[in-house]
Amino acid sequence: MGKVFAIMIAAGVPLTIAGSLLHWPSVVMFVICSATVIALSSYMGRATESLAIVVGPRVGGLLNATFGNAVELIISIFALKAGLVGVVLASLTGSVLGNLLLVAGLSFFMGGLKFKRQTFSVHDARHNSALLIFAVVVGFVIPEIFSMSMTEAKTLNLSIGISIVMIAIYLAGLFFKLVTHRGVYASEGNETHHEEVPEWGKNKAILILLAATAAVAYVAESLVHTFEAVGEQFGWSELFIGVIIVAIVGNAAEHASAILMAMKNKMDIAVEIAIGSTLQVAMFVAPVLVLISLLFPTPMPLVFTIPELVSMITAVFLAISISNDGETNWFEGLTLLAAYFIMGIGFYLL
Amino acid sequence: MGKVFAIMIAAGVPLTIAGSLLHWPSVVMFVICSATVIALSSYMGRATESLAIVVGPRVGGLLNATFGNAVELIISIFALKAGLVGVVLASLTGSVLGNLLLVAGLSFFMGGLKFKRQTFSVHDARHNSALLIFAVVVGFVIPEIFSMSMTEAKTLNLSIGISIVMIAIYLAGLFFKLVTHRGVYASEGNETHHEEVPEWGKNKAILILLAATAAVAYVAESLVHTFEAVGEQFGWSELFIGVIIVAIVGNAAEHASAILMAMKNKMDIAVEIAIGSTLQVAMFVAPVLVLISLLFPTPMPLVFTIPELVSMITAVFLAISISNDGETNWFEGLTLLAAYFIMGIGFYLL
Amino acid sequence: MGKVFAIMIAAGVPLTIAGSLLHWPSVVMFVICSATVIALSSYMGRATESLAIVVGPRVGGLLNATFGNAVELIISIFALKAGLVGVVLASLTGSVLGNLLLVAGLSFFMGGLKFKRQTFSVHDARHNSALLIFAVVVGFVIPEIFSMSMTEAKTLNLSIGISIVMIAIYLAGLFFKLVTHRGVYASEGNETHHEEVPEWGKNKAILILLAATAAVAYVAESLVHTFEAVGEQFGWSELFIGVIIVAIVGNAAEHASAILMAMKNKMDIAVEIAIGSTLQVAMFVAPVLVLISLLFPTPMPLVFTIPELVSMITAVFLAISISNDGETNWFEGLTLLAAYFIMGIGFYLL
Repeated sequence: MGKVFAIMIAAGVPLTIAGSLLHWPSVVMFVICSATVIALSSYMGRATESLAIVVGPRVGGLLNATFGNAVELIISIFALKAGLVGVVLASLTGSVLGNLLLVAGLSFFMGGLKFKRQTFSVHDARHNSALLIFAVVVGFVIPEIFSMSMTEAKTLNLSIGISIVMIAIYLAGLFFKLVTHRGVYASEGNETHHEEVPEWGKNKAILILLAATAAVAYVAESLVHTFEAVGEQFGWSELFIGVIIVAIVGNAAEHASAILMAMKNKMDIAVEIAIGSTLQVAMFVAPVLVLISLLFPTPMPLVFTIPELVSMITAVFLAISISNDGETNWFEGLTLLAAYFIMGIGFYLL
Repeated sequence: MGKVFAIMIAAGVPLTIAGSLLHWPSVVMFVICSATVIALSSYMGRATESLAIVVGPRVGGLLNATFGNAVELIISIFALKAGLVGVVLASLTGSVLGNLLLVAGLSFFMGGLKFKRQTFSVHDARHNSALLIFAVVVGFVIPEIFSMSMTEAKTLNLSIGISIVMIAIYLAGLFFKLVTHRGVYASEGNETHHEEVPEWGKNKAILILLAATAAVAYVAESLVHTFEAVGEQFGWSELFIGVIIVAIVGNAAEHASAILMAMKNKMDIAVEIAIGSTLQVAMFVAPVLVLISLLFPTPMPLVFTIPELVSMITAVFLAISISNDGETNWFEGLTLLAAYFIMGIGFYLL
Repeated sequence: MGKVFAIMIAAGVPLTIAGSLLHWPSVVMFVICSATVIALSSYMGRATESLAIVVGPRVGGLLNATFGNAVELIISIFALKAGLVGVVLASLTGSVLGNLLLVAGLSFFMGGLKFKRQTFSVHDARHNSALLIFAVVVGFVIPEIFSMSMTEAKTLNLSIGISIVMIAIYLAGLFFKLVTHRGVYASEGNETHHEEVPEWGKNKAILILLAATAAVAYVAESLVHTFEAVGEQFGWSELFIGVIIVAIVGNAAEHASAILMAMKNKMDIAVEIAIGSTLQVAMFVAPVLVLISLLFPTPMPLVFTIPELVSMITAVFLAISISNDGETNWFEGLTLLAAYFIMGIGFYLL
C-alpha cells in the first residue's frame, strides 16, 4: 500500500504542476489533486505515527492536528484576501463536522470492526467535552444570537473580543495539558507505546512531515481552484462544496492518521486527532482568521449561518454523548457517520 | 386486581362493539374505551413479563416496545390515509414525551417509593442516550432548521433521506445489541432473573399478548373517533389531544408494564420499555410513517411544529441527565413527571 | 484581612447612611456601597463557614444560598412594585450566570491554584445537573417558546402554572436531600469536617449572619439607586447593569464564601453554594417573584429576552459538562470565567 501511495505522489505532484500551467479541465485536475492529497496524507500519517511513538500520544496528537490545520489556515487566508467570507465560514463548519463526525466516526467504525471494545482516557474525553461546549455552544452561539439585535460594527467588536478570549483559553489549555497537569490524568496503558519501534527516525519523520505538508499545501491550492467549475458540473452549491467537499479533502490527513491509529487500537491518539483537531479549528483557527480578516477589506465576524451553527451544535452534543464514557465500538462510529451523512444531504439540498 | 381487569375486558370489549354500532354518545364511549384499553394493557404487561422471564430482559423490553408501538403504527397509518399529517406528528411527539417523561417518570417514582435506590445498566443508559441525541437532536432538528430555507419538495427529499438513514441505524443498533455485542455490556444482576417462575408459559403468554394487542387495536380505533367530540366538549385543542391524550391512552401498555417492572425492582426492563420505546418511535415508527405517507395523497415531511420539537429536545436532555448514572430514586421520577406536567399545561393553553 | 473588612464595615455603613441623607454624588455612593457590601459579605462568609462546621456541608450550603438570595429577593420585590419587570428578569439572569460561571469559576480557579485536583460528590453534581436542566432548559425554555404563539393572558397563566410546579419540585428536592435520602449519597470525606473548630460559636455566628444580612440589604438598596446615574456616566445599558453589575455585587456574599471554601479544599460546600444558589434562584426566587408580581399592577411572565435565555442555557450546559465528573482544576475554573467574560462583552455591547 505504501508503494502505491509513493507512486501516486511521484506522479501526482508533477501532474498537478503541469496541469495548472497547461490549464487542464477542472474535473481532471480535481481527480488528480484529490488523489495526490490523499496519498500525501498517508505519508503525513506515517510520519506523525513515527513521531508519536517518540514523543508520546498527547504531543503526537497535537503535532498531527497542527499539521492538518496548517494547510487549512493557509487556504483560508487566501480566501479571506479574496473577500470570500462565506466560503471560509463554511469550510470552518466543514472542518468541525468533518473531524467530529467523519474522522471520529470512521476511526471508531474501522477500529470497532477489528476490536470489540476500544477505550481511551475518560479524563481527556471530559476535558475535550467541556472545551467543545465552551467553543461551539458558548463561543459560536453567543455572537450569533446577540448579533440579531446588534449593529454590524458591534457584532464585529463582539467577534473580536470572543476571538481573543478563545485564543487565550486555547493556549491556557495547552499550558494545562503540557505543563501544570502533564501526566496527571494519564491512562495507565499509554506508557507501553514507547516500547514500539518507530518506522522512521525522528529527523527523517520531521523531514517527511514538512515536505508532505508543503506539497499538500501546493496541491490543495490547485484543488480549491477546481471547486467552482466542478460544483457547476455536478450541481453542487457553494455551501455544499465548503462544508462537505473541502472538509473531506482538507481533512484527509487527519482521516488517514486517525483511522491508522484506531486500527492499531491506539484510541488515545485517534481521539486526540479527531476531537483535538476540532478544538484547534474552533478555538484557534477560527478566531485567528477573525483577527487576520481585519487586515483585509472585508472583515469576518464570527457569525455562521443558522444551518451551519445548528449542525455544529448537534454534532457536538452527539460526539460528547458518544465519547463521554471513554469507550467506543463499531456502532458508535456508524452513528457518527450517519449524522454526518444526514447533514451532508441537508447541505446538498440547501 | 387481576380479576377486576378480567371483568373490565369481558365487559369492555362487547360494550365497545355495541357502542360503535349503536352510536352511543362520545363521552360514554371515551370512558368505556379508555378503561378497556387500560385493562387490556395490564394483561399485555403480565404476558410480556412472563415472556421476559423466559427470554431475558433485553429481548423482553424489545418485545414490549414492539407490541406497544404496533398499535400506534396502525392508528397512524389510518390517520395518514385521511391526510391528518398534523395529528400524526402530534401523536409522535406525544409518544416521545409520554415514554420519556410520563412512563419513565412514573416508573422511577413508583419504584422509588418502594426502593431507596434503584440501578440499571450504565452501559445501556449511555447507549440509549447517544441514540436519543442522534434521533431527536440530529434527526428531528436538522430537517426543521434546513426546511426553513428550502422548498417543500426539497424538504420532503431531505425527510426521506433522513428516514432511510434512521431506519438503517435502528436496525444496525438491534444487530449490535443482539448479535455482535450480545451480553458484552450485561450487568451482573440480570442473570438471576432467570430463576424466577413466569406466571404463564411461553405459548400461553404469546397467545394472550397477541389477542390483547388485537383487542387494543380495535378498541383504540373506536377511542380515536371519540377524540374530536370529547375535545370540543372539554375545550381541548387538537394539538393537546394529539400530544397528551393520545399519548397517555396509546402508551397505557408501556405504562402498565414499566411500572410493574419498576415496582419489582427490575429497572433494566422498566428503562428498556420507557427509553427503548421512545427510540423505537423516533428511529423506526416516525421514519416508517414518512415513507408510508408517500403512498398517500398528502406526504408527511419530518417537520414538527417548534413547540413540539423544543419539547422533545428538552425532554431528551432532561431524561439523559437523569438516567445517565444508571441510578434512580423517587425524586428523579417526580422531576420527569413535573416536566411532563409543564409541557402539558403548555400544549393545553396553546 | 479580617481587620480591614471590620474597618470597612465600621466606616461604610455610617457613610452609606450619611451619603443617602446628604445626597452625595452617585459614583461616590457606588464605590462606598460596593466596598461595604463586599466587606459585609466576607463576614457573612465567615459566619456561614462557622455554622457549616456545626451543621454539616449540605445544610451549610443551603444556609448560605438562602442568605445570599434573601437580599436579592427583597430588592426584586421593590423593583416589581415599581413595575421594573425587565430589570428583575435581567437580574435573575445575572444571578444564574453569576453563580454558575463567575462564583463557580472563581472557586475552581482559586482553589485550583492551591490544589492540583479538587473533588466533590459526584452524586450531588448529577443531582444538581438534572435540576439545572429541569429549571433552565425545561422551565425557562417552554414558556419562552410557547409564548411566541400565545396571547399575553395565556402566557401569564402558563408562567403561573410552571412557577407552582417549580416551587413544588424545589421543596420536594429539599425533602429528598434532607429527609428521605439524607446521607445516602454522602461522600466519605465529608464527615471529617466535623472535627474542625469553628471560628465562632453557633449563636454568635447566627447573630453575625443576621446582622450582616440586614446591613447588606440596607446598603444594597442604596447601591441600587446609584445604578442608573452610574450607568449613564460609564455608558452602561440597563441590561448590562442588571445582568452583570447587579449580579456581581448582589452575589458578593456567595463569591466570598465559595472562594474561601474552595481555597480550604472544601469543594462540596463551594459547589453547593455556587450551583445550589443557582438552583434556588431559578427554582424558588424566580417563580416566587412571578407569583408575587400578581399582587402588583404589572405582572411578570416567566419570559426572558432571547439573549438572556440563550446565555443561561449555554451556561448550564458548560457548567454541567465541567462539574459532572466531580473534579475540578484551575483550567476548568478559567473556562467558566472566560464564558462569563464572553457573555459580559455581549451584554455590554447589546
